[in-house]
Amino acid sequence: MLFMEDKTNATSVIEETILKRISTRAYLPDKQVNPKLLKKVMELSFRAPSWKNAQGYYLLALTGEKKDALVKELVEEAKTETARPDIPYDTSYPPAMKKRMFQLGTDLFAHLNIGRKDKEARDKFSLRNFEGFSAPVLIFCYIPKKLKEWTTLDLGLMLGHLALTASAYNLGTCFQASLASYPDIVKKYTAMDDKWNLMVGLSLGYPDKSAIENSFRTERTDLENTFKII
Amino acid sequence: MLFMEDKTNATSVIEETILKRISTRAYLPDKQVNPKLLKKVMELSFRAPSWKNAQGYYLLALTGEKKDALVKELVEEAKTETARPDIPYDTSYPPAMKKRMFQLGTDLFAHLNIGRKDKEARDKFSLRNFEGFSAPVLIFCYIPKKLKEWTTLDLGLMLGHLALTASAYNLGTCFQASLASYPDIVKKYTAMDDKWNLMVGLSLGYPDKSAIENSFRTERTDLENTFKII
Repeated sequence: MLFMEDKTNATSVIEETILKRISTRAYLPDKQVNPKLLKKVMELSFRAPSWKNAQGYYLLALTGEKKDALVKELVEEAKTETARPDIPYDTSYPPAMKKRMFQLGTDLFAHLNIGRKDKEARDKFSLRNFEGFSAPVLIFCYIPKKLKEWTTLDLGLMLGHLALTASAYNLGTCFQASLASYPDIVKKYTAMDDKWNLMVGLSLGYPDKSAIENSFRTERTDLENTFKII
Repeated sequence: MLFMEDKTNATSVIEETILKRISTRAYLPDKQVNPKLLKKVMELSFRAPSWKNAQGYYLLALTGEKKDALVKELVEEAKTETARPDIPYDTSYPPAMKKRMFQLGTDLFAHLNIGRKDKEARDKFSLRNFEGFSAPVLIFCYIPKKLKEWTTLDLGLMLGHLALTASAYNLGTCFQASLASYPDIVKKYTAMDDKWNLMVGLSLGYPDKSAIENSFRTERTDLENTFKII
């Protein structure tokens, strides 16, 4: 059977690397990521293809005291202010997608033993998003203001590489819209101006393997709902 | 040194898998991709994270006669009609990015021994984009019309997984805006309606290793131009 012949060390590793990647929601806050390692991960990720090799993005990583100060301000802001992202959230999802999104919320809170009506516990957990779940590294992804979907697609391709490279190095990641909710605050800490849109943020670090958050696994819809060969 | 300790079989494989991935511009047209293998690659790719697990995209793969018929129509269209993509191209790139884009064109044509002023040869090569460089599989990526950047980012993350999974299976890929230049034609062949935007297309298949197109390698800008640790 052709299919078995295709299996190699490389295909086993890519499968493991993909399957062990999760949205990491608890990190070892004091286990620092070696800057050399972080740069190596980024260098590999930037090998991703982009429109005519434009590499139309700029990423800034915050660590240490600066990161702590930013996180403190973001959490305070999130307690009282609604999000004001540079890029408006998508809201008009078709029913099948909405159903998957609703299911994720239901499943996650059930896994965390947080009751549907326990607003206090839900709010407390939601605020942890703005701390990047205590990750030692937060990365903020910028795109020039005048560039739109095609460059966003390129950024995504690069972040797909980043997620898997980090996973191969046993680093956890979580892509978080929350970290891009208050771009003015983030831009202050990352010395970026309004010529750039803050597209998305991500937390990165060594996962806390004992944390209940990290034993949560999400399903994917059946392949036939997202892919078809004609 | 911490960094060396981080090296494992997984990190070697991810590095090889990333470094061997190129924009494949010549395929073995008659070496078919086993549908089971293609589905396996897609299943792994769909493990990519998405906004609240929405998986806000739909992909269709065309092979065989249907693919050949589509390609024929796309090439004819491209000979006389300018592109009419669902998603307007990004045009206002800052100078540093523009420079990288220009360099890619210059380097690629130099590699192919096509003179800068040889319009006929350049046009002939450009038209090969619309054939997906003779790949046995063309994949078309759709997003619901009302969903914009955030869903595009999710699509990119998934395609980043796809590029690397394919690479691990020794399959070549090339992400091609060209394949999304005439969405009305593609939608006819893929039975999709105007509730969807055709975001991007990609060619997929076994690379023709002897082809001059596939010995072309692109540089990336120095890390400091796209990434900074604060």
